[in-house]
Amino acid sequence: MRVLGVDPGLTRCGLGVVDGGKGRAVRCVAVGVVRTPADAELSRRLLGISDEVESWLDKYRPAAVAVERVFAQHNVRTAMGTAQAGGVVALAAARRNLPVVFHTPSEVKAAVTGSGRADKAQVTGMVMRLLNLEVKPHPADAADALALAICHLWREPMRQRLAEAEARAAEIARVHKARLAAAAKNTGPKKNTGVAR
Amino acid sequence: MRVLGVDPGLTRCGLGVVDGGKGRAVRCVAVGVVRTPADAELSRRLLGISDEVESWLDKYRPAAVAVERVFAQHNVRTAMGTAQAGGVVALAAARRNLPVVFHTPSEVKAAVTGSGRADKAQVTGMVMRLLNLEVKPHPADAADALALAICHLWREPMRQRLAEAEARAAEIARVHKARLAAAAKNTGPKKNTGVAR
Repeated sequence: MRVLGVDPGLTRCGLGVVDGGKGRAVRCVAVGVVRTPADAELSRRLLGISDEVESWLDKYRPAAVAVERVFAQHNVRTAMGTAQAGGVVALAAARRNLPVVFHTPSEVKAAVTGSGRADKAQVTGMVMRLLNLEVKPHPADAADALALAICHLWREPMRQRLAEAEARAAEIARVHKARLAAAAKNTGPKKNTGVAR
Repeated sequence: MRVLGVDPGLTRCGLGVVDGGKGRAVRCVAVGVVRTPADAELSRRLLGISDEVESWLDKYRPAAVAVERVFAQHNVRTAMGTAQAGGVVALAAARRNLPVVFHTPSEVKAAVTGSGRADKAQVTGMVMRLLNLEVKPHPADAADALALAICHLWREPMRQRLAEAEARAAEIARVHKARLAAAAKNTGPKKNTGVAR
């Protein structure tokens, strides 16, 4: 399975394409970064990111897109720009009917390094080892995009199994509730007749 | 000039098209709301909003798009969704080469009611009066979208004049600095010869 990982941002948007093989085998297909000028209009910057992501989707044809989920940042303005960049990436994927999954930074760090609190250098180091890269991906956003793709490849099977298990549990609960309701209906009138002497 | 105002949101995205005439004359062309199901995938919801906004742009052909600027909200998750919805709207406009301007809620309230702290009911009331609407736009997001369009029509000429004045001032400052630098170059050596007796 091929995944496009995206570390969204207006100034730098990291892109990384990774192929997943048997077990934990992963292979780097492409890595890069989209930059948009800080003095350009917001809508123009979003268009620049969207156009570049669309050309990556056309060129590499991934089966899924993994985007970093933004919760909150110190700088609200930056967080909003990051969310907007992530939004246009998700839109481009949806237009091609591709599944888009958002992963939190700590999920990505935990998947790649084993620790949700790993620093940037540790993540980059593990990404280089896992993908057999001789040159450090630059800037860090590019390494983060590769880490996101790896995280998705490794977490997705588990996430799907979990979703299936939850759906089964919900179905069992639904059936059980329906039986209880039916039983209450049947025993209800008897109880009433018992009370009325 | 015709403006599409957008009050972005994933659950409800308000849309309002307003024509501006001479002075402060405004006329309502269309008003509505796009809803996307809360249980749908985020990327699908963004696609639903994008498709609807694109069809409005094609149908009403506005000259500009005014979007509410999100700063921060109590609920970070909601704020991110709002930012993402606003991002795909800005993208749709940029694809059609339309200018997109973001206005803050207090700018909109101040433009329409005269007070940046007006409440929803006051904004809706003034929108109805200004546009001669007999029926209250529902939901509130639809009224907000109309208010955004009106705000844009009334603020834009002033905003452009301000930008032109700032550009002129920057140019004057640049010329003045260049003259000072040239003068310093010419007087510099004289001063030095004066010090060296």
